[in-house]
Amino acid sequence: MKIIVGSYVLLYHTINKKWLIKVEEEKKMHTHIGIIDISSIIGLEYGSTITTTLDKKIYLIQPTIFDYIMKSERNTQIVYPKDLGYIALRSGIQNGSKVLEIGTGSGALTTFLASIVKPNGHVYTYDINPEFMKIAKKNLVKSNMEEYVTMTESDIRNGISLQDFDAAIIDLGDPWTIVEHVYKVLKGSGAFLAICPTMNQAEKTAISLKNNYFTDIECVEILIRNIEAREGMTRPSMRMIGHTTYLIFARKILSIDSKKDTPVNN
Amino acid sequence: MKIIVGSYVLLYHTINKKWLIKVEEEKKMHTHIGIIDISSIIGLEYGSTITTTLDKKIYLIQPTIFDYIMKSERNTQIVYPKDLGYIALRSGIQNGSKVLEIGTGSGALTTFLASIVKPNGHVYTYDINPEFMKIAKKNLVKSNMEEYVTMTESDIRNGISLQDFDAAIIDLGDPWTIVEHVYKVLKGSGAFLAICPTMNQAEKTAISLKNNYFTDIECVEILIRNIEAREGMTRPSMRMIGHTTYLIFARKILSIDSKKDTPVNN
Amino acid sequence: MKIIVGSYVLLYHTINKKWLIKVEEEKKMHTHIGIIDISSIIGLEYGSTITTTLDKKIYLIQPTIFDYIMKSERNTQIVYPKDLGYIALRSGIQNGSKVLEIGTGSGALTTFLASIVKPNGHVYTYDINPEFMKIAKKNLVKSNMEEYVTMTESDIRNGISLQDFDAAIIDLGDPWTIVEHVYKVLKGSGAFLAICPTMNQAEKTAISLKNNYFTDIECVEILIRNIEAREGMTRPSMRMIGHTTYLIFARKILSIDSKKDTPVNN
Amino acid sequence: MKIIVGSYVLLYHTINKKWLIKVEEEKKMHTHIGIIDISSIIGLEYGSTITTTLDKKIYLIQPTIFDYIMKSERNTQIVYPKDLGYIALRSGIQNGSKVLEIGTGSGALTTFLASIVKPNGHVYTYDINPEFMKIAKKNLVKSNMEEYVTMTESDIRNGISLQDFDAAIIDLGDPWTIVEHVYKVLKGSGAFLAICPTMNQAEKTAISLKNNYFTDIECVEILIRNIEAREGMTRPSMRMIGHTTYLIFARKILSIDSKKDTPVNN
Repeated sequence: MKIIVGSYVLLYHTINKKWLIKVEEEKKMHTHIGIIDISSIIGLEYGSTITTTLDKKIYLIQPTIFDYIMKSERNTQIVYPKDLGYIALRSGIQNGSKVLEIGTGSGALTTFLASIVKPNGHVYTYDINPEFMKIAKKNLVKSNMEEYVTMTESDIRNGISLQDFDAAIIDLGDPWTIVEHVYKVLKGSGAFLAICPTMNQAEKTAISLKNNYFTDIECVEILIRNIEAREGMTRPSMRMIGHTTYLIFARKILSIDSKKDTPVNN
Repeated sequence: MKIIVGSYVLLYHTINKKWLIKVEEEKKMHTHIGIIDISSIIGLEYGSTITTTLDKKIYLIQPTIFDYIMKSERNTQIVYPKDLGYIALRSGIQNGSKVLEIGTGSGALTTFLASIVKPNGHVYTYDINPEFMKIAKKNLVKSNMEEYVTMTESDIRNGISLQDFDAAIIDLGDPWTIVEHVYKVLKGSGAFLAICPTMNQAEKTAISLKNNYFTDIECVEILIRNIEAREGMTRPSMRMIGHTTYLIFARKILSIDSKKDTPVNN
Repeated sequence: MKIIVGSYVLLYHTINKKWLIKVEEEKKMHTHIGIIDISSIIGLEYGSTITTTLDKKIYLIQPTIFDYIMKSERNTQIVYPKDLGYIALRSGIQNGSKVLEIGTGSGALTTFLASIVKPNGHVYTYDINPEFMKIAKKNLVKSNMEEYVTMTESDIRNGISLQDFDAAIIDLGDPWTIVEHVYKVLKGSGAFLAICPTMNQAEKTAISLKNNYFTDIECVEILIRNIEAREGMTRPSMRMIGHTTYLIFARKILSIDSKKDTPVNN
Repeated sequence: MKIIVGSYVLLYHTINKKWLIKVEEEKKMHTHIGIIDISSIIGLEYGSTITTTLDKKIYLIQPTIFDYIMKSERNTQIVYPKDLGYIALRSGIQNGSKVLEIGTGSGALTTFLASIVKPNGHVYTYDINPEFMKIAKKNLVKSNMEEYVTMTESDIRNGISLQDFDAAIIDLGDPWTIVEHVYKVLKGSGAFLAICPTMNQAEKTAISLKNNYFTDIECVEILIRNIEAREGMTRPSMRMIGHTTYLIFARKILSIDSKKDTPVNN
């Protein structure tokens, strides 16, 4: 596949030196490994190699959603790839899903969710912070996911007219306050998944879910370790991210009549 | 959404007592928590609650790909959900992707890959074991993913006529022997991802990738811990799966002329 | 070193089949790998090999404190070896130390502490449960640590006449309630270390320590993974203990005049 | 306990700002949190608080072996506290033990081993690097462990006249080459423990142990996570050390006659 003007390209030198750029004519990029002539890559195939003015190799990679997320503009903590994959799989999100996201943040998770539900599904995302919404918009446009997302600047605790969501993904500081609101707009057996950096948030959210007709409640933490696989000296990396977040998942049960019928899980 | 004859339903009692069944008329299921009258659930909404003859609650859950995978028939070790999500995200697989899978096994990973590439993409899966292929077929039919998958009983080291794969997912005992074959059929900057249970496999595969025009080589291990989130006594579970597999990822670089130009990654 | 009547021996067949026994004349042990004639080992060297009546090998190992602890009689959860070593090192306990233990339990931790402080130090251990005390006593006698330990059946919240402890090790359900009592009997800069299975216990204890003239407050969790190191197929074990306890450590600061002077740590 | 001239003191401000110093008259320490007048602490109790010229608090802590190790002079990677405690416990080292250390390095592990075997045991440590030996000597003197250690600058593969060690601790790049030499000088059922940063070292060492009359072979990896225990927002730290080393342990079996009798473990 050929690179054209307007294409996005991941300029890859090493794992720690890579840039996600948009191809434009007459663009040059100054880096500490030399100048990269962006216009020179127009017409090349993805997978090609160019060199900087300091003769360092740059590989031209077609960016994936992973790359867009890792290189997204952000002013909030993003959800990490190790967590994203599990969120999608556990919540059952796939092509065609109708997904509610509460807490757009910088849009990294939104981008990922849109990439999964497309082309037949849709993501409805809510945030109360207009600054976040602007950045999220830019990230969605860059990754070409804009058409699969509807952004709304409001607090869903004030009401929401949509219904029958397949899944709701919550990235708020106080997810337990939103449980009953989410309950109303999920379809039967629909998925609730909240991102909870602290154990206190996870605990409060679990309690709220147990008290609000949710079942299959599961709280997990995912860790990723890099392995340095090298001939005769393979070992895990010395450095590691020790924690990002807990993930808490549940599924909605239709209530029959009263709170005394609350399902008890475990 | 109403449950009809032929629907699949996850009968959920607790995390350790759940059954994935197909709804049929006049079917009854005998369990140690009582008899479940399957025919009685025809016409109910997903999310409803029924009771067994011993008055135990059963929640009627619409199964997700996660449930199909966890409840798939198998005679091989399956790839775990914690790993599946990362495989898809890191490899950039999404709706429309053309994916090569080498090592169909029981089809759990195939099912997952198909659920992501549909409706516009396709998974081409290869295995040399006809017994595995039969089980994989059943699992694909059950999860309704059959039309997005082409199964071939052969060893791709003997040749493969397809080209231009976006990604190749390898689940073989000796992935390092397949690297050069996969190289030929991947598109430029396409993704290679191998499942390597042992460190020795990961090491050999990394070496082979470094010697065969691949870059962005990354080896990781993903751990999942269950958290028991309970009021005033939240803590990780005592039991945990200590290891499933290492995952090794890379992207294809177009070779220019000779092996002496091999990219060196770190 | 020769085995004599009265010696303790670890009869080791495999990691999962091993017995800690006392050598007696005319004793035979019936196991599912055959009968072991205990009297036959009198006069052998530690490190020797015998066989059962089913011709299975048994290695005669001189037990270490690790073996005594792993094979101790117990009716409470014991502190695991992965945690024990860190407890001793972080608390600065060594030969000659005067140690306070609150919560004797089955005496496994007591045994370990005694093995470190001997021959010049002493462990003073408190518990309110006479049943635990009986079992702990047996375990201390068996491991020959009895003379380095004074056991008291009382609640130290009711007062304790001893002073100037080098370290206090707390294994109670509510360690935060004991912080001020421990403060009074520790020497200046002495160590406090509590075993807290849940995050809520750790949090409450940390708060109490911050409010009671302690500094260098550290909370950690230690994980141990078994590695199956085998030629060409080395990997971590599939099974793992996911959690035992958090450990919370601090050191006592001498208060000068008033609570308003409380040190703030982070 | 009063601080006198010649005492070592840990000047503790925060977890990341602490200094291990020797008390001398007319000594002043210049730090970025102000000047600390060391002579002013002579006669104070450990646990007291002083202030810098910038009015920052400094707690006067009596250093433990943990502090000496963490603040030791070093030009090699030290063994971490999380590993040290387990090494001692698993190897059965205690007061009175006769311990062989191969690979003195900067002496951090030597210091720790000495602190456990004292006053009745002894550590015999070997290294071929005179530079390391000099640093190790300084660290042993500082922590007051010198009298319990005999340092020898030689390669034990060239012979060693001592016998009957209770335990041997190996910190070399190629521990598998030393297994048979260690075998000869360990007492029956004595402990072998090697520090192996890579999986390849662990694998080779395990194979060598299986081929040389060792049993109870165990390979583990220990991970430590810091927990930020704070009111209402408790969670693991974002940063973590991902790997230091594997630890491989075994116990010596007395050979009877020939290699064909080699014990097979697991």
